[in-house]
Amino acid sequence: MLGRVNHVAIAVPDLAAATASYRDTLGATVSAPQALPEHGVTVVFVELPNTKVELLQPLGTDSPIAAFLDKNPSGGMHHICYEVGDILAARDQLIQGGARVLGTGEPKIGAHGKPVLFLHPKDFFGTLIELEQV
Amino acid sequence: MLGRVNHVAIAVPDLAAATASYRDTLGATVSAPQALPEHGVTVVFVELPNTKVELLQPLGTDSPIAAFLDKNPSGGMHHICYEVGDILAARDQLIQGGARVLGTGEPKIGAHGKPVLFLHPKDFFGTLIELEQV
Repeated sequence: MLGRVNHVAIAVPDLAAATASYRDTLGATVSAPQALPEHGVTVVFVELPNTKVELLQPLGTDSPIAAFLDKNPSGGMHHICYEVGDILAARDQLIQGGARVLGTGEPKIGAHGKPVLFLHPKDFFGTLIELEQV
Repeated sequence: MLGRVNHVAIAVPDLAAATASYRDTLGATVSAPQALPEHGVTVVFVELPNTKVELLQPLGTDSPIAAFLDKNPSGGMHHICYEVGDILAARDQLIQGGARVLGTGEPKIGAHGKPVLFLHPKDFFGTLIELEQV
């Protein structure tokens, strides 16, 4: 079921400082910040040769990463996103295997304009997993 | 400086259960467990098309992931490893940029038989970064 690692998402309290660190200290290629108000984050893409890292900063009053940053004020790795070919087939197979899908269970349109789902971290050893249909 | 994402490491309290979950529930290709006593972990490789995830379980009494699992008993994403071409040049550039290298500052031979270094998570927004020379 799992395809490529689409991205690793890192929540940070200060996106400008984190972007400068990845660009200047680590020598990576970084995008301009993109505000995604419908997802409650501003994102900077760190482009690596085989995948990308997404630096996320909360945007607005109801950000899905606010609680994580309350618990981890310095920031940290927030989730990993895997690509799947058919997100509904993947979801049904996961539920049959006993995994819990967050929210309504229906895919939403994610930050890349494609259908996504999140799986309960308690079912995957503390790791929040996003699935994205590509 | 940063090259490919070599792997994302996930610490887990029960490697057999995590391996079964990635293999059976998520449908991924997983390796046999490999004990690495000199690194204080047993590892299972989850092979994805563009990179890999490493599931780590503490091995022995002085495991480098024991404190992480004390703090995160269910497990969680532990570090991300980037490839670099010249680890000594990368280290010197990082130190010049104000980043701290863990331990003595000299590369050790990592789990893949190649020189590795770890960077202080406080300098990278809560993310433990491993560099591996390839």
